[in-house]
Amino acid sequence: MAPQALQVAREFVRTEILERDAEPDTGVHARFRESGVANWWLPESTGGLGLPLVEGVDIAAALAYGDAGLAFSSFVSIVGTSLLELYGGQRLQREWLKPLATTGGYCAVLGSEREAGSELDRMDTTAARDGDTVVLNGTKLFSTNADAADFWIVFARATAGMEQPYVAVVVPRTAPGVRIEKRWNTLGLATSPVYQVSLTDCRVTAENVLAGHGLRLLEIGLNPSRILIAATAVGIARRVRDLCMGYAKNKPLKGTTLAKNPIFADKLAQMEVGIEVMRSQCRAAARDYDAIMAGADPAAGFARRGALKSALVAKVYCGQTGWQIAGTGSEVFGGLGYTDEVAIGRLVRDMRFVSLVEGGDEVVRELLYARHVMPPAKRS
Amino acid sequence: MAPQALQVAREFVRTEILERDAEPDTGVHARFRESGVANWWLPESTGGLGLPLVEGVDIAAALAYGDAGLAFSSFVSIVGTSLLELYGGQRLQREWLKPLATTGGYCAVLGSEREAGSELDRMDTTAARDGDTVVLNGTKLFSTNADAADFWIVFARATAGMEQPYVAVVVPRTAPGVRIEKRWNTLGLATSPVYQVSLTDCRVTAENVLAGHGLRLLEIGLNPSRILIAATAVGIARRVRDLCMGYAKNKPLKGTTLAKNPIFADKLAQMEVGIEVMRSQCRAAARDYDAIMAGADPAAGFARRGALKSALVAKVYCGQTGWQIAGTGSEVFGGLGYTDEVAIGRLVRDMRFVSLVEGGDEVVRELLYARHVMPPAKRS
Amino acid sequence: MAPQALQVAREFVRTEILERDAEPDTGVHARFRESGVANWWLPESTGGLGLPLVEGVDIAAALAYGDAGLAFSSFVSIVGTSLLELYGGQRLQREWLKPLATTGGYCAVLGSEREAGSELDRMDTTAARDGDTVVLNGTKLFSTNADAADFWIVFARATAGMEQPYVAVVVPRTAPGVRIEKRWNTLGLATSPVYQVSLTDCRVTAENVLAGHGLRLLEIGLNPSRILIAATAVGIARRVRDLCMGYAKNKPLKGTTLAKNPIFADKLAQMEVGIEVMRSQCRAAARDYDAIMAGADPAAGFARRGALKSALVAKVYCGQTGWQIAGTGSEVFGGLGYTDEVAIGRLVRDMRFVSLVEGGDEVVRELLYARHVMPPAKRS
Amino acid sequence: MAPQALQVAREFVRTEILERDAEPDTGVHARFRESGVANWWLPESTGGLGLPLVEGVDIAAALAYGDAGLAFSSFVSIVGTSLLELYGGQRLQREWLKPLATTGGYCAVLGSEREAGSELDRMDTTAARDGDTVVLNGTKLFSTNADAADFWIVFARATAGMEQPYVAVVVPRTAPGVRIEKRWNTLGLATSPVYQVSLTDCRVTAENVLAGHGLRLLEIGLNPSRILIAATAVGIARRVRDLCMGYAKNKPLKGTTLAKNPIFADKLAQMEVGIEVMRSQCRAAARDYDAIMAGADPAAGFARRGALKSALVAKVYCGQTGWQIAGTGSEVFGGLGYTDEVAIGRLVRDMRFVSLVEGGDEVVRELLYARHVMPPAKRS
Repeated sequence: MAPQALQVAREFVRTEILERDAEPDTGVHARFRESGVANWWLPESTGGLGLPLVEGVDIAAALAYGDAGLAFSSFVSIVGTSLLELYGGQRLQREWLKPLATTGGYCAVLGSEREAGSELDRMDTTAARDGDTVVLNGTKLFSTNADAADFWIVFARATAGMEQPYVAVVVPRTAPGVRIEKRWNTLGLATSPVYQVSLTDCRVTAENVLAGHGLRLLEIGLNPSRILIAATAVGIARRVRDLCMGYAKNKPLKGTTLAKNPIFADKLAQMEVGIEVMRSQCRAAARDYDAIMAGADPAAGFARRGALKSALVAKVYCGQTGWQIAGTGSEVFGGLGYTDEVAIGRLVRDMRFVSLVEGGDEVVRELLYARHVMPPAKRS
Repeated sequence: MAPQALQVAREFVRTEILERDAEPDTGVHARFRESGVANWWLPESTGGLGLPLVEGVDIAAALAYGDAGLAFSSFVSIVGTSLLELYGGQRLQREWLKPLATTGGYCAVLGSEREAGSELDRMDTTAARDGDTVVLNGTKLFSTNADAADFWIVFARATAGMEQPYVAVVVPRTAPGVRIEKRWNTLGLATSPVYQVSLTDCRVTAENVLAGHGLRLLEIGLNPSRILIAATAVGIARRVRDLCMGYAKNKPLKGTTLAKNPIFADKLAQMEVGIEVMRSQCRAAARDYDAIMAGADPAAGFARRGALKSALVAKVYCGQTGWQIAGTGSEVFGGLGYTDEVAIGRLVRDMRFVSLVEGGDEVVRELLYARHVMPPAKRS
Repeated sequence: MAPQALQVAREFVRTEILERDAEPDTGVHARFRESGVANWWLPESTGGLGLPLVEGVDIAAALAYGDAGLAFSSFVSIVGTSLLELYGGQRLQREWLKPLATTGGYCAVLGSEREAGSELDRMDTTAARDGDTVVLNGTKLFSTNADAADFWIVFARATAGMEQPYVAVVVPRTAPGVRIEKRWNTLGLATSPVYQVSLTDCRVTAENVLAGHGLRLLEIGLNPSRILIAATAVGIARRVRDLCMGYAKNKPLKGTTLAKNPIFADKLAQMEVGIEVMRSQCRAAARDYDAIMAGADPAAGFARRGALKSALVAKVYCGQTGWQIAGTGSEVFGGLGYTDEVAIGRLVRDMRFVSLVEGGDEVVRELLYARHVMPPAKRS
Repeated sequence: MAPQALQVAREFVRTEILERDAEPDTGVHARFRESGVANWWLPESTGGLGLPLVEGVDIAAALAYGDAGLAFSSFVSIVGTSLLELYGGQRLQREWLKPLATTGGYCAVLGSEREAGSELDRMDTTAARDGDTVVLNGTKLFSTNADAADFWIVFARATAGMEQPYVAVVVPRTAPGVRIEKRWNTLGLATSPVYQVSLTDCRVTAENVLAGHGLRLLEIGLNPSRILIAATAVGIARRVRDLCMGYAKNKPLKGTTLAKNPIFADKLAQMEVGIEVMRSQCRAAARDYDAIMAGADPAAGFARRGALKSALVAKVYCGQTGWQIAGTGSEVFGGLGYTDEVAIGRLVRDMRFVSLVEGGDEVVRELLYARHVMPPAKRS
């Protein structure tokens, strides 16, 4: 099944993006939904393909090769769906995951807030218990796919009558009090719309609260998406490389071509070092994730571990290395690299997101140090 | 005089750019022309301010603090005007430099071609002698300000009846056969328009040919502009720093502000190291240039030296360091750094030009090695 | 079996190196030979443990944690033994591999020459067929363990009567004409002796010639050792980290300890990123190697592939990243880091070897580009 | 006068170090004392050459080209002599500076302590007033030249009867209670001996206390030495470059020589960028220092400013860039670069000191941020 899904993704990118030879457009999402591969990770019990994350890494990279915005919008639902799968119970899964498996729809995550920034425990969005319902209020800074999503997972501080100090709540897109405040203009990822959204006295059934401490859940939900974000760096970097090679093959230089220039060769080889190592780390992290997921009690396994070391490392490493590769790539084309005649400018702008979303490098490194370097027993 | 000019430039940036609190617009050029500082380097004999390059470095950095596009468009004429000053004769200077000193107009340079790329000796634009005239034919890839310029300096391969194998020719913007092919869409430097242009049987008087080998002249003309391009990196980097500091001052973090966070402090201090060192190198290079210019026979001095080592070094170093600073800066703002709420995205895009125009790093390093590292006597 | 071997190696390092709390000494080799783990990769058919390379990666890293010289001397025989295993025939394996499996002895490799440098095809050592024998003449620049080795694998240019233009020949240490010219003083790796050696009319039976083109064989033999060299960077880097953490735990700073200083934490976390990613790449490369070794016809498989991409990448990446980590580590201790009170100086000197032996970065990148980047079909 | 001093230093290095073609030896110090250039910065009023720091930068670089240990031992007295000159009064200058100008002797500085580390205000060495004398007690971790010095400048915490909380005191080498505890083994700088020393009830006249707050004085005294340490990086880097070029000129590669290899050329050119920029920053910092020194009241000028921004920047930048250059250089020679056949190993070890002495990078950056980045008015 898996190679087939990867094959479908590659074919989609080739025919729907590369051969169209145009800037990525937002229509690409609807076309991808019809490919049969959308939401490839959803468990077979919900009608999904049930692919392990290690294959997701290859698919995300393949999509990002064509359009990182398509890739990100296509996999970021995994933050919420994996939490539903692990901590959501049968009813929620049936109600919300099954349709996603069928239609390729989205689940949006509402975590970040302006004031709290990287200190999630300072979030101001509140969830208050009221009889059988929970009432949500607050504004969330960034939420990808929020407008087109079937449902949202909202992270909030519990104010009254909750078992946990922070909670994660499933909120239908159609719930009253839910509002798209604005769409952000972003440096890159043009086809992946991100919104500021708000909840005003938004009331949902208390059964929609996921089991567990909300902040721990968010940490867990970010495991697969951080690995897949890292994987997009692999895809973008491959595109940069191939763009460079395509240009160099025919670019005359000193009686031969740029592709045969030793300095160019040395630079591209170093780029390949980065690509290969990024892929190895993404796969290693995905295997760690898959091993827990395939264990006897994945919900308990993830609750115990929280953020996986290898996932944090993949995120930081691929953000840094991808950015280097994009920078190197943009220098290959000389002045043309500063124009829209070559796609490199877009790739540079797209690549930047890897280090900026779902935790900047300092934030991730702080977690890494506290969890995996400070305690001697956790060092490896 | 000089501090005054720098003061005027800073004041202009403050009132006309920073306080308007909007994206840089192209109207800024017209307003700057009226500031009295435009073309600050033109010799007093032509009615200019006659400022040395070491002061130009500070002015260019001050303008780039506000808008790198304004800075680049404002100083790039120096490539041509310095050649006219050194190798142009009284008539040409009177005819073409005086108006620039009065009106703040532009001189555009036409050097780069698509096929030749970094191998300028492969340029296809031709200059043929025909009686008292020279006829020019060819297409030039990139020319900043070409449309609004009073005149162009065209670099061409001599085909017949010329003393030099390559020549530099003054061409009035209004000459017949001169055509703007298109304006390029660029990754950054939005307010600095760059064009593809062509010359078709464009005929000018043979007196418009500058004295000397065209390729050597181009190398000489790039000395001051490469130093000033390097100086724009200083200005953009300072803006990045101040943007970071402005954000950090009020951004709450761990019970205090980001500005008091040790990791942020360490990062910003490293940024300051880069800013200070870039400035020192730009000034050192400018002093080298000014010393030759103030010598007994600057035309011969430059003809003998060609590309100055310190100018080449400034260009490479500031391109690299500026890019690092821009990258660091864009990570300070977290997700907001990926949106247009903060100007950092524009600064990253603007900064990229430093390494891409007037010779990519490999091209400059090749020259540096051949001229200043290989010959033992030239090492310092 | 495997975890046990790793366990033995770790225990050896703990008791024989770390707890002795002295500079590594050469006696460590003899003690390691008695550990039962020496030459852990030799096939079970020869009496060895037959461990796959992916476990060898962990063992090499564990040894290098204690002493990189011990690690290198202990695994570098794999270049020759793997060639004997693949291309040597039953008799050679019985005669030369069995004793190594029993006694933990060494096989030294004689490849590099002063004049040839990285251009192995320019090697001057010759092998001439003479009846049933082959006569070897030449001087080899670097050969680790050559003096203590049971036998050497000599790479030579064939001059007459050979099937291949270059050959690999098994030469007993006791063969006539074999001479140790000198032991090199090296910057680091004090416990791993490396020699300049010569062969003068050294005559061995022609049955000692391995099957295949000598240069291709060398390329193949370097696959496992390059991966294990990369793995030593993991071990040294972990030692650097633990040295830093041990120091930081008790070092007072600003009312707390260095270990709780945010800048230190950030730096150590970045170090951990490097360690984790290096390990992932070493393992990925080792798995590639093991997969071919476990295939139906590994000799043909390796002959077809030559240098493995992932092995080349591991070597380059770990050399670069290890060096960065060593540099960072040496800055943690302030002035003490420049003295022999802390072991960091030795670790910096040891780490340097990763990038310098068995192909410098440019040489490896050139191979990488030619084989895996230029041909579109080979890109991944 | 100045060019002559630089010329003497260069000549000394050529005849006494380079042409001897041996590892630097400690006898070099005595020979340099006789060169007439030793302590070149001492004011003419004391019988010195009175050279400005900008020339000292060139001399330090010239000495470091031959032997960084010689360079460091030769200029580090400037920390103490500049304080004596600024804050010491006529008697002290006559008594202690004059002999140094005549004999080329040393002044050693006793600042660092084990417990205090980078937090100098935690120093434990005490100075207690007792009638007309001051009694010093404590142990100092690192003091270069302490054994051979004529006198020491001791930094201590005042315990009783002093005007300042911290003081700097002139202590004759022959004073009772002064003891050399041990000489350190260091990673590099073999010819620059550094000692742990102690003071036990060491009594000197109270007139030996310099005017001003001891910690501020130390900060001021480090200004010139930090700039000169930075300048040693220039000298070592030039030696690395010339070593590479000398090797490359004759090293055959691909039918030509390494010196004509494009990748090598590109790498060496980047090295030259670093060398040139380091020099520019050292000179810029030295000019800042000289300007204050040439001002109306240099003692007040330095007291007001403390650590100069450009000096801090020079130290950090040259430490980082020098280290990169040393690393690059060591890769040029392949395996030979790991042996003592080429001097590169020593240069790598020597270079490391630039970042480690007189304040590690974090310490210097912290000062830089607090003084020159945080206060908007101090940004440039």
